[in-house]
Amino acid sequence: MLSNIVKEKIISIVTKDNFEDTKIERLSYSYDSTPNLQSMPDAIVSPRNTKEVSEVVKVCNEFKVPVVPRGSGTNLCGGTCPTEGGIVLLFKHMDKILEIDEENLTITVQPGVVTLKIANAVEEKGLFYPPDPSSMKISTIGGNINENSGGLRGLKYGVTRDYVIALEVVLPNGDILKTGGKLAKDVAGYDLTRLMVGSEGTLGIITEATLKLIPKPETKKTMLALYQDLEAAAKSVSKIIANKIIPITLEFLDQPTLKVVEDYAQIGLPTDAKAVLLIEQDGSFEAVNRDLEKIMEVCKQEGAVSVQVAQSEKEAEKLTTARRSALSALARLKPTTILEDATVPRSKIAKMVNAINEIAEKYKLDICTFGHAGDGNLHPTCPTDSRNHEEMERVEMAFAEIFEKAVEFEGTITGEHGVGVMKAPYLELKLGKEGIAVMTAIKQALDPNNIMNPGKVFAKDSKKRVVVSK
Amino acid sequence: MLSNIVKEKIISIVTKDNFEDTKIERLSYSYDSTPNLQSMPDAIVSPRNTKEVSEVVKVCNEFKVPVVPRGSGTNLCGGTCPTEGGIVLLFKHMDKILEIDEENLTITVQPGVVTLKIANAVEEKGLFYPPDPSSMKISTIGGNINENSGGLRGLKYGVTRDYVIALEVVLPNGDILKTGGKLAKDVAGYDLTRLMVGSEGTLGIITEATLKLIPKPETKKTMLALYQDLEAAAKSVSKIIANKIIPITLEFLDQPTLKVVEDYAQIGLPTDAKAVLLIEQDGSFEAVNRDLEKIMEVCKQEGAVSVQVAQSEKEAEKLTTARRSALSALARLKPTTILEDATVPRSKIAKMVNAINEIAEKYKLDICTFGHAGDGNLHPTCPTDSRNHEEMERVEMAFAEIFEKAVEFEGTITGEHGVGVMKAPYLELKLGKEGIAVMTAIKQALDPNNIMNPGKVFAKDSKKRVVVSK
Repeated sequence: MLSNIVKEKIISIVTKDNFEDTKIERLSYSYDSTPNLQSMPDAIVSPRNTKEVSEVVKVCNEFKVPVVPRGSGTNLCGGTCPTEGGIVLLFKHMDKILEIDEENLTITVQPGVVTLKIANAVEEKGLFYPPDPSSMKISTIGGNINENSGGLRGLKYGVTRDYVIALEVVLPNGDILKTGGKLAKDVAGYDLTRLMVGSEGTLGIITEATLKLIPKPETKKTMLALYQDLEAAAKSVSKIIANKIIPITLEFLDQPTLKVVEDYAQIGLPTDAKAVLLIEQDGSFEAVNRDLEKIMEVCKQEGAVSVQVAQSEKEAEKLTTARRSALSALARLKPTTILEDATVPRSKIAKMVNAINEIAEKYKLDICTFGHAGDGNLHPTCPTDSRNHEEMERVEMAFAEIFEKAVEFEGTITGEHGVGVMKAPYLELKLGKEGIAVMTAIKQALDPNNIMNPGKVFAKDSKKRVVVSK
Repeated sequence: MLSNIVKEKIISIVTKDNFEDTKIERLSYSYDSTPNLQSMPDAIVSPRNTKEVSEVVKVCNEFKVPVVPRGSGTNLCGGTCPTEGGIVLLFKHMDKILEIDEENLTITVQPGVVTLKIANAVEEKGLFYPPDPSSMKISTIGGNINENSGGLRGLKYGVTRDYVIALEVVLPNGDILKTGGKLAKDVAGYDLTRLMVGSEGTLGIITEATLKLIPKPETKKTMLALYQDLEAAAKSVSKIIANKIIPITLEFLDQPTLKVVEDYAQIGLPTDAKAVLLIEQDGSFEAVNRDLEKIMEVCKQEGAVSVQVAQSEKEAEKLTTARRSALSALARLKPTTILEDATVPRSKIAKMVNAINEIAEKYKLDICTFGHAGDGNLHPTCPTDSRNHEEMERVEMAFAEIFEKAVEFEGTITGEHGVGVMKAPYLELKLGKEGIAVMTAIKQALDPNNIMNPGKVFAKDSKKRVVVSK
């Protein structure tokens, strides 16, 4: 509960209209897209500009009130769940595209802009903002930056981090920090821009961002390769890249995922295949055609039973839309869906998929696997039921083993979803105690009162998934 | 001076052969490529592996001895000058390429490997490591990472930071931190990899790095556009990019630079032109040809008096080699050469070049300007004589104004050379007191004894260039 003095101070900054603390409002913001995780905030505050954010944060810092920034709450790691109460900072008013600069190829936005709106706005000008998290129709750029979101095009084009070139950030003490600029090169001091990207709201509140754009590629083509052997599909992935081709998209779906997606999307996907690769390439017409021919050759060499190029943009669109719906499709199966994003070097994908299947069998669970095979970013997904405590314990043990395997294969516990609450207990697996110590030192130096999204990234004690221990 | 106990401890770690403290050795490492900056180290230590680095750092931390890591000392900001004494850590033994991984497209190296050796080693395998600082024949990758070096290809391919995906770092307390991995996606915790890149040795000692590679482009072409009007050249730069073409290289040389370079390289450069653009594009044959045609059209529209494509690889090589020799050529003119790297958004290049010329005139100095126009990274260069104190004062005032102008145009005080000693007094201009405060907090949190390259990045007091105040 906020004290009356805090409440009054915040209202005096943002006005009554932008302060909510009714039970129903608090309930609405007590969870995000993470299964089985809920915690009530004390209030929801919707600032209208950076100055208001700064003033609200100053009050919170003085009275040690947690601040949880929130876009659309699409994240899957509990990153925007107010686990320690405090205020949820909502960016519904700060949702403007401020500028598209065609000379410097940049777009400057407020944090509340929906990602797809950015993609569409720049496309109209012949430009391209590559990061495309599956949730881009709903997610906001502020959330994308805080989580360093990936997407289907990460293989060729990188992730959100690779496009953020300047930030305005309200620091825990309320100071307003400006980093970077419309600059291709800037080595003036530590890379604070990229320190903020992916810090999950634990170091400051992003209030404005300038993103790098690139020219829209001339053309794009999509193809589907079918396999009766999972390993052959995985091997094709490394083989394509070892042939010096970097496709824009190189997605993998195993048979269980394929069946569920087809059932959901009904577009005639080949559900008798054991695995499929969805491959896209963009660039100049000639280069795309040459790459596609080479890819086709590699896939066939590696044992693909069929390789087909989408004959129209509509057909291609259908395929990628189906892939993007994988989580929604899987979520229809059972009440609870645990989707993870263990990531390995792409040369280890075959091994990792096999390991996931063995772990699923060991714990008697259904785990479907799909994901961004080209960048080794897999999404093992378990449809389950959180009311079944016995099964949930097996789920927990299975995912713990999956994370351990990923790290054993020189991978990571999270490729694009973030640490949040859910993976905090596993972070040390990846970073070692040295990495945790460095992060802790930085966090304490910048946010000594621990008001910025507390309870996230840094584990409190156990190595258990919160989803189970609750 | 090192105490006997420190000396003995370090020798017991690295052996006598790898410890030097004779006057002649200390003198050899008392300066780097920065003009007019010299300071004696207490000893030069050459560790043979990470464990030795860690043990040496532990001793230094216990006894509060400064540690200055050094590759080839090619930097221009005083980054490797031991301004506060202590030990220079030399990586002559840690100079191996450890692995080229063709499946994951990575190379893993020790810090002492010369940059060109990396470029050549991967090219043999059909791969490409894009960052190409002008000093790449001599500079080491450890230095490149510490300074986040740029180069001629930054416009299209980015800088060193964009290729570092994993690091092994010895922290100030001697702990060994491992960040990242052979991973296209990794959001497990703060981006410590990129915090280390460009931190100029002030946060830790890099002992191993994994770099991302890309497939070698099919072809590359080079052209030269001549102008009788400096502004027309600058405008061509923004216009090319506004036409959705991102060349690999887009270099600018003004007439004074051109004359000096021709005098040095003797390859028949058109010294009667007021400015030239050196333009390179790579990619598929068809795309490169199309881009070149379009670029030619734009340059002519903007008033180029001549545009010529190099007819052979040899001719192209000559042109880029001439460009790379600009600093060496200018350095022949006078005893002291002050080369800076003020950087602006590319839309502001014409304004910035004009401003530099006005400032040169105001202070009655010769300032030649060349640089990476495509990314707004200019190198205003003043041939001068440090023994002429009156002139040096004018040089100092001129460059202070140049930095102020760059920041006024939303640029930065350094695009690729780093802050070091030379630009520390100007850093606040760019970052504000908030940025300096965040950096200071991080530095103190990780290196409380301030042993890591002390006196760099963080200004002590004045706003003067050290080159003058000494």
